[in-house]
Amino acid sequence: MKDWLDEIHWNADGLVPAIAQDHRTGRILMMAWMNRESLALTVRENRAIYWSRSRGKLWRKGEESGHVQKVHELRLDCDADVIILQVEQLGGIACHTGRESCFYRVFEDGAWKVVDPILKDPDAIYRAGHPHE
Amino acid sequence: MKDWLDEIHWNADGLVPAIAQDHRTGRILMMAWMNRESLALTVRENRAIYWSRSRGKLWRKGEESGHVQKVHELRLDCDADVIILQVEQLGGIACHTGRESCFYRVFEDGAWKVVDPILKDPDAIYRAGHPHE
Repeated sequence: MKDWLDEIHWNADGLVPAIAQDHRTGRILMMAWMNRESLALTVRENRAIYWSRSRGKLWRKGEESGHVQKVHELRLDCDADVIILQVEQLGGIACHTGRESCFYRVFEDGAWKVVDPILKDPDAIYRAGHPHE
Repeated sequence: MKDWLDEIHWNADGLVPAIAQDHRTGRILMMAWMNRESLALTVRENRAIYWSRSRGKLWRKGEESGHVQKVHELRLDCDADVIILQVEQLGGIACHTGRESCFYRVFEDGAWKVVDPILKDPDAIYRAGHPHE
């Protein structure tokens, strides 16, 4: 039997996009990237663990902010190169700007307009100054 | 005023991931890629137009299948490198396998299991034999 991790078509950098969606409301919270190790750990620990491309290391979502994403379901697409995580977003904030979702800008009249409120001051979320954890 | 297309952080290949979500149900239908031209055309024509990486050309979603995605809203994330399209999926089928969504496999007991039905035979959808249009 083929390993479930081998079925995934990792890109040239060994990554796949992972979309986190609120399991109750269906709202898309964020998209980040996973490598083989982070996906295996996500399943083992039942929480979203991404690969931070900017920092080049595992990113245990919520490790600093407390905004952990508990995983309820994982899905894979037809090309086996995109993953969806149905999550429970602890604290109700996924974005490093202090908003529920990273997708807080809407295209209107030829511009991107901020339409969602900041729920918590990022300075109060991140004390050590790592806005992307 | 900065052009709205210039605000987007295109990757090294000049692309961004674009997530299509059903505007009524919230179900994530697919993820594909857009370049500058395809996003500009998406806005102008009010329908999803992707960049096909495999074919190296514009991909007017539904051009062969009729499964056009009418765009209701566009959102951009905090890093300006992922887009969400809230769409009306004509025909109710987004996936080239004839399913509603490309995300029809769920992780269960260490394997990816198909859980969604085929709504229409792909052979009946694509007469010219281009499964990804």
